[in-house]
Amino acid sequence: MTPGPGIQRTPLPKGFTASGVNCGVRRYRPDLGIVISDRPSVAVGVFTQNQCKAAPVTHCQNLLPSDQIRAIVTNSGQANAATGPEGVENNRAMAFAVAKELTCLPRQVLTASTGVIGQQLEIGKIVEAMPELVERSTDTAESFALAILTTDLVPKTVTTTVTLSQGDVRITGICKGSGMIHPNMATMLGYVLTDCDVPLGLAQDILVDATNVSFNMISVDGDTSTNDCCFLMANGASGVPLKTVEDLIAFKSAVTDIMKLLAQSIAVDGEGATKLIEVRLSHAPDLSLARRAARGVTLSPLVKTAIHGEDPNWGRILARLGAEQVPGPLLETMTLKMQGFTLFENGRPSPVDREAVRATLKTDKILIEVNLKAGSFEATAWGCDLSKKYVDINTEYPT
Amino acid sequence: MTPGPGIQRTPLPKGFTASGVNCGVRRYRPDLGIVISDRPSVAVGVFTQNQCKAAPVTHCQNLLPSDQIRAIVTNSGQANAATGPEGVENNRAMAFAVAKELTCLPRQVLTASTGVIGQQLEIGKIVEAMPELVERSTDTAESFALAILTTDLVPKTVTTTVTLSQGDVRITGICKGSGMIHPNMATMLGYVLTDCDVPLGLAQDILVDATNVSFNMISVDGDTSTNDCCFLMANGASGVPLKTVEDLIAFKSAVTDIMKLLAQSIAVDGEGATKLIEVRLSHAPDLSLARRAARGVTLSPLVKTAIHGEDPNWGRILARLGAEQVPGPLLETMTLKMQGFTLFENGRPSPVDREAVRATLKTDKILIEVNLKAGSFEATAWGCDLSKKYVDINTEYPT
Repeated sequence: MTPGPGIQRTPLPKGFTASGVNCGVRRYRPDLGIVISDRPSVAVGVFTQNQCKAAPVTHCQNLLPSDQIRAIVTNSGQANAATGPEGVENNRAMAFAVAKELTCLPRQVLTASTGVIGQQLEIGKIVEAMPELVERSTDTAESFALAILTTDLVPKTVTTTVTLSQGDVRITGICKGSGMIHPNMATMLGYVLTDCDVPLGLAQDILVDATNVSFNMISVDGDTSTNDCCFLMANGASGVPLKTVEDLIAFKSAVTDIMKLLAQSIAVDGEGATKLIEVRLSHAPDLSLARRAARGVTLSPLVKTAIHGEDPNWGRILARLGAEQVPGPLLETMTLKMQGFTLFENGRPSPVDREAVRATLKTDKILIEVNLKAGSFEATAWGCDLSKKYVDINTEYPT
Repeated sequence: MTPGPGIQRTPLPKGFTASGVNCGVRRYRPDLGIVISDRPSVAVGVFTQNQCKAAPVTHCQNLLPSDQIRAIVTNSGQANAATGPEGVENNRAMAFAVAKELTCLPRQVLTASTGVIGQQLEIGKIVEAMPELVERSTDTAESFALAILTTDLVPKTVTTTVTLSQGDVRITGICKGSGMIHPNMATMLGYVLTDCDVPLGLAQDILVDATNVSFNMISVDGDTSTNDCCFLMANGASGVPLKTVEDLIAFKSAVTDIMKLLAQSIAVDGEGATKLIEVRLSHAPDLSLARRAARGVTLSPLVKTAIHGEDPNWGRILARLGAEQVPGPLLETMTLKMQGFTLFENGRPSPVDREAVRATLKTDKILIEVNLKAGSFEATAWGCDLSKKYVDINTEYPT
């Protein structure tokens, strides 16, 4: 499995092409991207649970699941959220322009937008750039991955090949996200493409399960976006189906791993972030508690700033676990570790060389482990530290 | 009603005295304070809902409600939370030392602590300073208000006199709080003292109702403390009872106003804050939605940073309302105002002079009004902007 942030080449699965161009909405950076399947493809999606949904989100929710999807077009710079009927019309025009180039129906085209809320799309520029966008598409993901970024510093792609009983399939994941990241159903924008032949119903289950342990377990700032969505497209171009149970397990596990890597890449690239924080909560009495508590720790600005200061402040972690309603008696018996050092156990601080712990925090990945010793459920959440740069970025981001 | 932050004199109600000294836990600042009633007093409390409760919180929960309370002793610098049986023992020793000075029973003494979680109290220093602390007590609140501060920049007191049917009573409120502020039941530490004669059962109701519209509606950083508590002490020293329904209404309304001013003073003094944010949510279909949505907006780091940058970024407010599950149809019909300017209405951005709005944000109080046009419930929440100084303070705060 190859995480591909940076400029390295990320191949797409068979039958897929992609591209990105600058259509003029943003001044210099590419701002319009497309993923194309050369044949109608199975496609499923998971979407933001924010009640304020952008026009493209509603559009895709209406179309999916479908086995007829040809493309996903995405613009960055303007979110097309809170834009009323005009926004719906502009979104439709975007899908229409793609359909014209691909000689397919508009309902075979998915749309996504990311950027400033409340601005009307500069749809003229987008429609005008469409012929060039489609013409430039190639069999690698980089230009698309670049075109969908907003405050992200690096493009985010992962690709892998899985050997199934009937042959090899490729899975390529692409995502973006840096601020307004607290997915509740899916990430800011995620795309998982495969040439495997996957039945429609199975595709939806795989995507939902994988989302719950990946994108839905990261948080940069606790703000759930209006535009979150994650798509899985399976066009079958490899000719390789999911034939056996082992095939299904191998394929689902590869999709899940890709989505976990993508999710982590968003946390790593969180606005202003310098450190990835991983919180593993184990032996919880139930799953929802495990998920909430793990995610709660990654959300705490006090934990985030302590880690930014490379300070093993376990008291703030404990306080957040209590605030997330981890039962008091479990807080008395649990073990709390940071970077492998036990800091709190059996209701009291552990004797530990604080300077030794502090020294291990001078790295870019911090592991916090909480063992509740009260059951068999576990959850892992990812977040990032909180730096002054986060404040800079969001104080200055234009509206 | 006189809000008294700063060095001005804040009188205590009859029969109450208070003081604060440096006992040596902190290097220079006063770190030990006490409020004393010259007679047994009615006392009630509301406490953190964090499952990780400090030793003094459990102590007070066990004692209250009571009509026999003589004093509340409070130390700052060490929270006595997550300190195991030794912490319970130290807390008991603190109450014991006070009881010895006042010649009363230890169970007539309430305790509170604020500061670093997980350190054992330097109880020797605290006990040693007790005679001086009690001896120095006077009829004003300043020295106590100073002794309970941690990262606060200013002491927080408010006092008022209410004229009831049988005479005048005084109510004086004191609180502290700047970080780890997202009260869920009460503020970090709040004290409301009165010489009115209030029945025990009524006192509890008044405190709970007033807490729900004051301390429970502020947030600095979304982190609920392990030590939150708010006390109401009514010693009856004025000889004035609550006789008529009008008396009750006047008294309760004065207590509520005092607690709202105290709550706002905490938000104003939030770590790194430069602006108070007030969110008024009106015409909501139910109260819990109104409270959650109003408070959610004050919690959003994206809203907080936008306001820090004096940017009328209503898109972030709308996104947060949606994330708090304000129903989509209401988001289409609501009106959103900032500083009196309508920014979003009937599902689309309002035509507004953005520079005119921006100019009104160059002040230290920002008003956001959301009218859901769907019912008769309303809620007001207070928060503060998010600055780089918040990150500085919490990156450097010692553990």
